[in-house]
Amino acid sequence: MTSEILEEIKKTIVQRLPERVQVAKVEFEGPEVVIYTKNPKIITENGDLIRNLAKDLRKRIIIRSDKSVLLDPDKTIDRIHEIVPDEAQITNISFDEVTCEVVIEAKKPGLVIGKFGVTSREVVKNTGWAPKILRTPPITSEIIEKVRNTLKHNSKERKKILQNLGTRIHQGVKYENDWARLTSMGGFKEVGRSCMLLQTPNSRVLLDCGVNVAGNDDKTSYPYLNVPEFSISELDAVVISHAHLDHCGFLPYLYHYGYEGPVYCTTPTRDLMTLLQLDHIDIAHREGNPLPFNIKHVQKSIKHTITLDYGEVTDIAPDIRLTLHNAGHIIGSAMCHMHIGDGQHNIVYTGDFKNERSRLLERATTKFPRMETLVMESTYGGHEDVQPSRNEAEKEMMRTIYTTLKRGGKVLIPVFAVGRAQELMIVLEEYMRHGMIKEVPIYIDGMIWEATAIHTARPEYLSKDLRDQIFHVGRNPFISDAFHKVKNVSKRKDIVEGEPSIILSTSGMLTGGNSVEYFKWLSEDPKSTLIFVGYQSEGSLGRRIQKGWKEIPLNEEGKTKLYNVKMQIKTIEGFSGHSNRNQLMDYVKRLSVKPEKIITCHGDPYKTVDLASSIHRSYKIETKTPLNLEVTRIQ
Amino acid sequence: MTSEILEEIKKTIVQRLPERVQVAKVEFEGPEVVIYTKNPKIITENGDLIRNLAKDLRKRIIIRSDKSVLLDPDKTIDRIHEIVPDEAQITNISFDEVTCEVVIEAKKPGLVIGKFGVTSREVVKNTGWAPKILRTPPITSEIIEKVRNTLKHNSKERKKILQNLGTRIHQGVKYENDWARLTSMGGFKEVGRSCMLLQTPNSRVLLDCGVNVAGNDDKTSYPYLNVPEFSISELDAVVISHAHLDHCGFLPYLYHYGYEGPVYCTTPTRDLMTLLQLDHIDIAHREGNPLPFNIKHVQKSIKHTITLDYGEVTDIAPDIRLTLHNAGHIIGSAMCHMHIGDGQHNIVYTGDFKNERSRLLERATTKFPRMETLVMESTYGGHEDVQPSRNEAEKEMMRTIYTTLKRGGKVLIPVFAVGRAQELMIVLEEYMRHGMIKEVPIYIDGMIWEATAIHTARPEYLSKDLRDQIFHVGRNPFISDAFHKVKNVSKRKDIVEGEPSIILSTSGMLTGGNSVEYFKWLSEDPKSTLIFVGYQSEGSLGRRIQKGWKEIPLNEEGKTKLYNVKMQIKTIEGFSGHSNRNQLMDYVKRLSVKPEKIITCHGDPYKTVDLASSIHRSYKIETKTPLNLEVTRIQ
Repeated sequence: MTSEILEEIKKTIVQRLPERVQVAKVEFEGPEVVIYTKNPKIITENGDLIRNLAKDLRKRIIIRSDKSVLLDPDKTIDRIHEIVPDEAQITNISFDEVTCEVVIEAKKPGLVIGKFGVTSREVVKNTGWAPKILRTPPITSEIIEKVRNTLKHNSKERKKILQNLGTRIHQGVKYENDWARLTSMGGFKEVGRSCMLLQTPNSRVLLDCGVNVAGNDDKTSYPYLNVPEFSISELDAVVISHAHLDHCGFLPYLYHYGYEGPVYCTTPTRDLMTLLQLDHIDIAHREGNPLPFNIKHVQKSIKHTITLDYGEVTDIAPDIRLTLHNAGHIIGSAMCHMHIGDGQHNIVYTGDFKNERSRLLERATTKFPRMETLVMESTYGGHEDVQPSRNEAEKEMMRTIYTTLKRGGKVLIPVFAVGRAQELMIVLEEYMRHGMIKEVPIYIDGMIWEATAIHTARPEYLSKDLRDQIFHVGRNPFISDAFHKVKNVSKRKDIVEGEPSIILSTSGMLTGGNSVEYFKWLSEDPKSTLIFVGYQSEGSLGRRIQKGWKEIPLNEEGKTKLYNVKMQIKTIEGFSGHSNRNQLMDYVKRLSVKPEKIITCHGDPYKTVDLASSIHRSYKIETKTPLNLEVTRIQ
Repeated sequence: MTSEILEEIKKTIVQRLPERVQVAKVEFEGPEVVIYTKNPKIITENGDLIRNLAKDLRKRIIIRSDKSVLLDPDKTIDRIHEIVPDEAQITNISFDEVTCEVVIEAKKPGLVIGKFGVTSREVVKNTGWAPKILRTPPITSEIIEKVRNTLKHNSKERKKILQNLGTRIHQGVKYENDWARLTSMGGFKEVGRSCMLLQTPNSRVLLDCGVNVAGNDDKTSYPYLNVPEFSISELDAVVISHAHLDHCGFLPYLYHYGYEGPVYCTTPTRDLMTLLQLDHIDIAHREGNPLPFNIKHVQKSIKHTITLDYGEVTDIAPDIRLTLHNAGHIIGSAMCHMHIGDGQHNIVYTGDFKNERSRLLERATTKFPRMETLVMESTYGGHEDVQPSRNEAEKEMMRTIYTTLKRGGKVLIPVFAVGRAQELMIVLEEYMRHGMIKEVPIYIDGMIWEATAIHTARPEYLSKDLRDQIFHVGRNPFISDAFHKVKNVSKRKDIVEGEPSIILSTSGMLTGGNSVEYFKWLSEDPKSTLIFVGYQSEGSLGRRIQKGWKEIPLNEEGKTKLYNVKMQIKTIEGFSGHSNRNQLMDYVKRLSVKPEKIITCHGDPYKTVDLASSIHRSYKIETKTPLNLEVTRIQ
């Protein structure tokens, strides 16, 4: 695709840069402009030249060596090993000849970068190759390998995608930006299938594209993609707030449906959503209810994903700039700040968020440069939704575990694989290390292990305390000896028949998965305890047990067997990744700028409305509680 | 266009009807199915055969003679003159060979029809031609001639349009009708450019398509046709509530823009809107601000218009049935009742309406078989909008005229050409006939005369009292000798310099037109009176005079001349075609079915909200006050 805009930018660049830069070519790479130079030394020079150019052009600019001046790959590998200290523990070096980057995977990527980037600059100077440095997670992650391989093996296609995208983003606005509006496509006055369409006269951006896993049919499970204003061919971008399926589970369908555009999210979100999407396809297939898309579409989505760090300002459409901020809900979860036009409007979509610091994550950000509209979740928006603090919840948890282990029982905690599981792991490791509970094996079963591996690949996204432990003290709690991966099914019997232990297992609501198997074994043991830490939805097995059912009929090798519940049942609230009612109200109060309008979503109808009217009463801010299929004007 | 549906319907018809019907062909004609028979006698037989067929097929069925059995036109004319009594005063007979109809225009169309249709049936029996009987208005109307000629000369094209439309309407629904919504495209929280888009999974219907004549530029004058959910090629139908430009002024643009579908409205609306649209084009052209469409597009709109009588139920989309009901605002003004799907939802759009009987029109209907959503105007929705009753207003008017004429002055009433002018004419004629005011000439200047002519063509749409006068007493007040048409500009000087008189002239707000010229002549005459009967918008000359300005600078042959206002200035409220606040509230109360949701539109923001919240408080009905560009879910 030729692009007049690109030609124009190239002309300006060549004019503005001194001749010694020897510009070979200029290309779009998604939102960025890449200059290829025949003089690699220029790259490691004082960066002011490029910085000023970027400021003037109002574009993000990257400079790389032209193919013609790159060192031979074999020699490059040798040079890298000479330059980078052994302690960096390089595990792999590969080359992307399309982008002229060398991908260096290392256990300690910080040492590959060096202080103020000195080591990586040395690599460029000596080889011409631009180093792309990735962390080798201390726990091997199949998903991360899958994602990295997909990107490696489709480098050419990805370049094409990014070039086309760049042309689209930089084409300039066609119409005056005199309005902006938001279509509720899913997750309004309900929880599940979160999806909304931001529209301006110039562009259309989809925020989240989830499924309702509790839905009965297509009509209740998927977002309303059939609203007349939604057109796949006119969609500029998709932004995913976080990896839970109710926010990203329907994303692959967009690619099945013909979408060719980008997805923006953080790196942990990309990796975790790949994990969850593949698992979802797998489960649906096994249950004989295949989804309307398959693995190929997950792969296509990976190829179209552009990851952003928190705080990185990026053009995603001719008139929209996106910045992601920490939401404190799960690793990589983001609040999406969109700046529309030339200062016309600013909208923040919170996604799911936690307005409280946890062991795993920092508290959701409240600082935004500007914000006229806030779209916020209201999962616990009812005035009765006041849960105990995290601190109280932890104490309760410890008391329960302490008592159970003391009497020789086992602790079974059914838990959702992403987020809550890791939060509990950190808590358990900490308390065990400090001797507050007995040192027993903590068994990690199911997808939790893989999700944890992904956490270990991105410590930058974890709480400051955890980062300090990992980077400065050199202790990564996730790889503590206390944790044992349950490698195969046969191990389970040994676990339940063995010594006291703690078992973390999916699914969190006992709606299937391994937690049900453990329950079968342990249900009749009065010394053991089942601890619920998450929401048990109506109709789930978890809910029935929680309610106190004493006889549970379950399928056992094709026959129905009755299980007598003799084990202790305990519910501990306060571990939620969502803000409770007080935290939601407090969040609005603590915002650095007061929005003009707040739209509440992601909650039961009553809670959505209750939160909105309380906000209106307390803070005199206009609130809206749209239904799915409604459109709210924000500007 | 071939149509499987049509083939199927034809098959059923041939199977169901006895052989003697001799079906030659079956065609769609818009929402209707037309059967052409080679045995015209069947047409005049007992209609049960066709009625039952229509009921079973759930389609409207018409039966006409096949071309092959039609009598020669010349002979037909002779036969018609033999059959129809001379008192019918036939003025013209023409033939539509495409639809096999003979168009008979007569001063007394009732006599062409005959008692229970006996005379017109005789025409069919004797000639084969299906008579289409039109009233020759007692006052000649250029517009009606123009419209009738357009239809006559484009009969073939129109047939094609109607055939295509039929295929579209009868294609059946593709998707489950599980939602319906309404996009506010203009006239929400404002007055002017009324326009909204009704959407279901199967169809899209535009309700009104107006302009804001007081708008400053395209952005404020025209509806938001650029909303993403609006697509001209996917539009099924346009419904026009009434002929005022703020409800139909932008309709021709749709045809300029590529629309090929139908417009539904009453016959008076079609004729009056043609008048006003052409006048609008003309004025805009003269003012050097040409509109984005021209006469050709008005003509195209005429060719695509399907007129409906009040109460006539018509399929306008695969899943939408439209019925128009009297709105009491101006002649032909309609409330639009739409039945969606198979009983899924019923929505009524009031358009502008008067919940009070006037001399000209019956009070707006309140009887609907079902209604879940009501979209109502709120022009006078503020709680302070309480005007005197029509009766009080009339008395005040008479007192003022009486006094003015007595002292030898002239009465100038600037008035909007359509609606209020005719209302006043009826009042003045009545009072003069009863000797309550002096018998002086009533001069009718500008477009009022033509608008009145159109009123005389459709007495069926007038109030019962008027109809009784016209049909039974044989006295049509519009053709009273009291009224004098001002035929040319030179006559005006004679009028202002002559004996006492009453002058009705446009524009109603003295924003141009002849009323300004009369004002110039009369302004310095303390014996004369200027009576305002309508709303004077901020910034208009009318408003300034109303406020009491004593020196008015006006353009006189290129120079600015100062006019001293010495004439009496009087404002008489209560002649509005809109319901006042009490009438609006009372309307909701009197509805035969209580709607679940009421959406208020067509009013200043404050009035729209004030009315909505009063309705909510008083009647416990959910209300909504959307902005333009917002979408409200109705089902």
